[in-house]
Amino acid sequence: MGKGERTHTTILDHATSLASQVGLTGLTIGALADDLDLSKSGLFAHFQSKEALQIEVLDHAARRFTETVVRPALAKPRGAPRMQALFNGWIAWVQDDSLPGGCVFVAANTELDDRPGPVRDRLVALQQGWIDVIAGSFRRGIESGLFRADADPRQLAQDMVGSLLSLHFHSRLLNDHRAGARARRAVAALLEGAKS
Amino acid sequence: MGKGERTHTTILDHATSLASQVGLTGLTIGALADDLDLSKSGLFAHFQSKEALQIEVLDHAARRFTETVVRPALAKPRGAPRMQALFNGWIAWVQDDSLPGGCVFVAANTELDDRPGPVRDRLVALQQGWIDVIAGSFRRGIESGLFRADADPRQLAQDMVGSLLSLHFHSRLLNDHRAGARARRAVAALLEGAKS
Repeated sequence: MGKGERTHTTILDHATSLASQVGLTGLTIGALADDLDLSKSGLFAHFQSKEALQIEVLDHAARRFTETVVRPALAKPRGAPRMQALFNGWIAWVQDDSLPGGCVFVAANTELDDRPGPVRDRLVALQQGWIDVIAGSFRRGIESGLFRADADPRQLAQDMVGSLLSLHFHSRLLNDHRAGARARRAVAALLEGAKS
Repeated sequence: MGKGERTHTTILDHATSLASQVGLTGLTIGALADDLDLSKSGLFAHFQSKEALQIEVLDHAARRFTETVVRPALAKPRGAPRMQALFNGWIAWVQDDSLPGGCVFVAANTELDDRPGPVRDRLVALQQGWIDVIAGSFRRGIESGLFRADADPRQLAQDMVGSLLSLHFHSRLLNDHRAGARARRAVAALLEGAKS
């Protein structure tokens, strides 16, 4: 990485952290300039518009998510170990200090669901990619005979995402310290029920 | 209701609808004045601050939720019929035309989870009340011998909320038309697994 690229990445790290707290739609070039104590004109040289900044933050967060959660999980054996790794990786992601406001995607889902435009389009593409990773991992477990032949990968994926979203809600809003243990039990039961 | 009270309720209906689209934190007295084509000073006579408006909207939405979802469900027989009624009522609530942007609570959960203050406190109290309704309904089903004696009402409630949140995400963001059928299957399996 050259110096310019490193600076750009550092700015994106800050922007992602800020977005996790103020929301993606609250992430303006002005707000980021204040947070970084930089000039707005300097930031405009990096990001030509608020939408471009928001899309870059989504892509930046997605790259980090792929590197820290998806790739290590896909290196695990098929079936339950891979699904458990996806689940544990997601929990570690949400608890990471670099996202003080929780998962930037979980917040963006409801922020953007009725705001048509390029930022929402990018979010949909990224989130569909994440669901496809979960459903695809279930599908390969079925093909390998590790999960029941009549199991529905899309049903299992939607149910697993439910456990993640409910955990996020119970722990971050309701401050329920038992939510993590319950989510683990839910996913263990899901995998046990899918076993062939 | 007197005329003043009716006007206040009409304003709150508009404000709740607006909050479902722009988010609760986007609901300012100025934004509401624009939406209703009223003067800001007139609205300040109804709501003394942005926070007071946001709290009134939460309370207004919660009252409507109690009347249209909770109360009819609690009139159903204990056990699976009551849980199904809570689930179906929630789905009808999310699809109601008066909430064009989906459930105002689902969006507020991630908007407010790291914004300490009176609005978050009220949201937490209301959401805890909703979780208590679900868990309490499971508990009474257990006491009546309709659900297994060793079932955990808090586990069942967290799992059921997961099905609701995952449905909201799949249908509203990903526009997945099969999500409703999957959520129904998930809740049916949850209730079947809890049966005594």
